[in-house]
Amino acid sequence: MLTAHKIKILQSLDRKKFRQKYNLFLVEGNKTIKEIPHSPYQIMELYSVNPQEINHIFKDTTQVSATELKKISFLQHPKDSVAVCKLPEEAAPTEVPIEIILDGIQDPGNLGTIIRLADWFGIEQIRCSIDTADVYNPKVIQASMGSFLRVKVVYEDIADYLGNTNNPVLGTDMEGENIYTYNFPERFSLVLGNEGNGIRPEIESLLTQKITIPRFGRSQATESLNVSMATGIVLGEIFSAKA
Amino acid sequence: MLTAHKIKILQSLDRKKFRQKYNLFLVEGNKTIKEIPHSPYQIMELYSVNPQEINHIFKDTTQVSATELKKISFLQHPKDSVAVCKLPEEAAPTEVPIEIILDGIQDPGNLGTIIRLADWFGIEQIRCSIDTADVYNPKVIQASMGSFLRVKVVYEDIADYLGNTNNPVLGTDMEGENIYTYNFPERFSLVLGNEGNGIRPEIESLLTQKITIPRFGRSQATESLNVSMATGIVLGEIFSAKA
Repeated sequence: MLTAHKIKILQSLDRKKFRQKYNLFLVEGNKTIKEIPHSPYQIMELYSVNPQEINHIFKDTTQVSATELKKISFLQHPKDSVAVCKLPEEAAPTEVPIEIILDGIQDPGNLGTIIRLADWFGIEQIRCSIDTADVYNPKVIQASMGSFLRVKVVYEDIADYLGNTNNPVLGTDMEGENIYTYNFPERFSLVLGNEGNGIRPEIESLLTQKITIPRFGRSQATESLNVSMATGIVLGEIFSAKA
Repeated sequence: MLTAHKIKILQSLDRKKFRQKYNLFLVEGNKTIKEIPHSPYQIMELYSVNPQEINHIFKDTTQVSATELKKISFLQHPKDSVAVCKLPEEAAPTEVPIEIILDGIQDPGNLGTIIRLADWFGIEQIRCSIDTADVYNPKVIQASMGSFLRVKVVYEDIADYLGNTNNPVLGTDMEGENIYTYNFPERFSLVLGNEGNGIRPEIESLLTQKITIPRFGRSQATESLNVSMATGIVLGEIFSAKA
């Protein structure tokens, strides 16, 4: 049963503080929830308007009304089910040939979209600065469309890491080498910066190569591409050489 | 002065019916508004919390309070100014070497992002099916980040057009030729389909080439890329040959 006390706890999970207090986070929608058993994540509770569609993956599924689901969902248009998952212990980063480094990405939609891109391109790991949006924020989980289940996202002092890695460190910049003529190395870290301020100076000083997506339109008034779109275009170009 | 009657009219401009009735649409934020005089668009009224910053481009700028601005803005966090612009007569499409065709794009954010991409890559024209989101929807204008000023967006029967053009007609599909090995022609129309349903069958039958962004990740569970991200990656690849 979905008690008032339980609703209050679940509603608090949009804040990191409460996710850590209760050691829980939410995943919404049967499509993604059905993939959880094939991932390292663990469902603790499952609420659904149609339990018969989902109880094969979690036997104690609780039936809720659409009104109750709306109370615990963070979506404007709630889906069929909400899974309450155990917040995992943070995994240790591993050595991977190509990894993404996020320097202060704030928008949950951007982080979710970048996780989805990493999954599409088979990039297994994203290292985030401590001040990057939290992967277990419901908006990030939502925007990742299930890809958070397959891409490892770790938080650490990225300046410390980048100062010690032997891999080339690439970063997007307005004045870098054209991505279409640059010869990408076999192994590297790709740094993407904050939405408003870009890569911060102490990280920029650790880049071994700045790269740029050239603008083909003639107007100087054209805004820079959004960081998640820039990530998609750069990854598209990197992987074109592997096609 | 911003009368209650005026506020009511401006608030109605999120609906196409009222944009057409009053022949007006809104543009928000000084950065974009300052570009309007260099575009084919015309400012009819201008409301600003800081008229001194913007009245060099429109002499009858009306000073408004932050509270008044909030009433006429469609943004969650209103910017400095709101310009009321004249809805232009729809421009006739022209012949351009590379154009984008949208088949039923519904999400205003996707349309705005695709307009921004077209501007970045120097694509001058987007032809939309009649049921595609309206370019003068405030969310589209916002997401385009000023690029609507430079990219011509026309609405027409795209089946009729595609059935009569001599240009190759490319379309994204799950089972098409790999964009990284496909040799893009000099001139073509690139068709992108609806968010949920893709390109509709009667348009699909008019494609001369289906193209696909290959998935490099191994998981079959990975969701297809969002249509605006797919557009960015395809355009990135098309223009890589021109770099």
